[in-house]
Amino acid sequence: MTTNQQILLASRPQGEASAANFRLVETALPALNDGQVLVRHHYLSLDPYMRGRMNDSKSYAQPQPLDTVMIGGTVGEVADSRHPTFKAGDKVVGMGGWQQYSVVDAGQPGMLRKVDTTHIPLSAYLGPVGMPGVTGWYGLMKICEPKAGETVVVSAASGAVGSVVGQLAKVRGCRAVGLAGGADKCKYVVDELGFDACIDYKQHPDLKSLSAALKDACPKGIDGYFENVGGMILDAVMLRANAFARLAFCGMISGYNGEPIPMTYPQLILTNRLKIQGFIVSEHMEVWPEALKELGTLVAGGRLKYRESIAQGIAAAPEAFLGLLKGKNFGKQLVKLT
Amino acid sequence: MTTNQQILLASRPQGEASAANFRLVETALPALNDGQVLVRHHYLSLDPYMRGRMNDSKSYAQPQPLDTVMIGGTVGEVADSRHPTFKAGDKVVGMGGWQQYSVVDAGQPGMLRKVDTTHIPLSAYLGPVGMPGVTGWYGLMKICEPKAGETVVVSAASGAVGSVVGQLAKVRGCRAVGLAGGADKCKYVVDELGFDACIDYKQHPDLKSLSAALKDACPKGIDGYFENVGGMILDAVMLRANAFARLAFCGMISGYNGEPIPMTYPQLILTNRLKIQGFIVSEHMEVWPEALKELGTLVAGGRLKYRESIAQGIAAAPEAFLGLLKGKNFGKQLVKLT
Repeated sequence: MTTNQQILLASRPQGEASAANFRLVETALPALNDGQVLVRHHYLSLDPYMRGRMNDSKSYAQPQPLDTVMIGGTVGEVADSRHPTFKAGDKVVGMGGWQQYSVVDAGQPGMLRKVDTTHIPLSAYLGPVGMPGVTGWYGLMKICEPKAGETVVVSAASGAVGSVVGQLAKVRGCRAVGLAGGADKCKYVVDELGFDACIDYKQHPDLKSLSAALKDACPKGIDGYFENVGGMILDAVMLRANAFARLAFCGMISGYNGEPIPMTYPQLILTNRLKIQGFIVSEHMEVWPEALKELGTLVAGGRLKYRESIAQGIAAAPEAFLGLLKGKNFGKQLVKLT
Repeated sequence: MTTNQQILLASRPQGEASAANFRLVETALPALNDGQVLVRHHYLSLDPYMRGRMNDSKSYAQPQPLDTVMIGGTVGEVADSRHPTFKAGDKVVGMGGWQQYSVVDAGQPGMLRKVDTTHIPLSAYLGPVGMPGVTGWYGLMKICEPKAGETVVVSAASGAVGSVVGQLAKVRGCRAVGLAGGADKCKYVVDELGFDACIDYKQHPDLKSLSAALKDACPKGIDGYFENVGGMILDAVMLRANAFARLAFCGMISGYNGEPIPMTYPQLILTNRLKIQGFIVSEHMEVWPEALKELGTLVAGGRLKYRESIAQGIAAAPEAFLGLLKGKNFGKQLVKLT
């Protein structure tokens, strides 16, 4: 009988998350009922939003219950099926969680989707052609609304979401400026991803220095900003924002551990007539087909580049996740499960 | 020969504005050139935005130059005209400034507009049927986008703008909740203006207390917020905002003296998918006809109420303005010049 290694949420973090918040268990796989599909996961996606679900506080997402398998996106292969739409060997994307296998009620809409790996690698469906890609697409297109010639800035620019934002902005004729931590990431953002500039925020420990760097990188000011980080970077961007700039709030990883990080100059929202809007991509399923079509076409054509950090084996997931929260990953953080 | 008493900007405030920043002068009225109109002002409008123009810092508006007549909206009567559209006795609204008379190049679009005082008092064109009214209309309709059954909150609720916001929200079937300073203003907001509730923020010196008062007044949370104040009131409102709430930033009077007042919980923008947008009504002239039509109809029909604080004589303008900045006015602050 096949067993299934799983990572459960063992306890809620007090402040920073740690390995002690997770527990690895091994369970027996149940027999399939009618309509169910057994998926063997090839890759698990690790994403910053998972940190929010570890808290018990009111948030946009239901807290992850204790002693249950951590939620997460997965790609894999159908190992066994009692649903007519799926057959063994089909490549599928779903929300299988932090485990080697999942049993899916495949008849429920949105639970499992077959994907074509002829021109797009399976793992890309967890990155640029998956939730992170659509996240970047939505925030850029529907909130930042970039026009050719404008300047778009994105934080965490080498990450799974940020890398998509800047490349899509370039496709639309904008100047794309990234923020990333470290010279290696900044070099990658400019040389590989094709951004016009990238600021290493680690070289700018105070607001004045960071604001000056943004002024250099954005000589015409900032028209669109895609926020993945919060804190001082947000303050610095707001100080360089043009009138009528649009700021999409996608993540505030700097505040995930609970301590509130103030916005220093909210009066700039008024004086510069800024629009700031938060969003969660899963609430905008109506744009997914359009977004995935563009993202898939760009990836298949080699015009949308991405990078993956791959941890090996389910037991490595907690440490990889904690590293992601500290920016240790480089590109999309995955866990390979086969 | 007629003379013209004027108030000039004598110096820029360091911190709080004071009477010493203004100077009263008396000048001779020039003869009219072709195309010019002499307007005798009946009322001068005092508005919080004027404080921003007294500063020299970068802002949305050009700073008021030193030693020039303070800018301001006026209503009055044509005293003499060398423009074919205007004749002596016409009632007009314009930007005549802090002075008894103005000489207007009436051919330039937007400089002078004839108004009908059959059903609407002349002074109302500086209040609910003028810039403050359209300001409330725009922020509510175009940013808060209220739907029947939702809850709309407005700060400075007894003021020229706030009073319009709440009454328009009621017309649209919303619950309208105000914030104002003092029991008299709150009683007026509920009993006279017809808001559902009004919170006396002076009774709630800390965030916890104010947040609890908002919870009581808004049992279904807050869907729209019209911001005239900033600071702690904004924090308290954000803590009670529902998912997808819309916040229109119209004024941040609490920050006009230069000290930045942080927004304590910007992560709520993300977790509650808030939209926050700043605006300046003069940049949206396309909505003025529609807005003025509704506002004029409501005022003429007695369905949009308003109150005026009237100071007497141009020399009283500086003190009245300083009082406005401290919330000493009750309703629209005007200076009567006849």
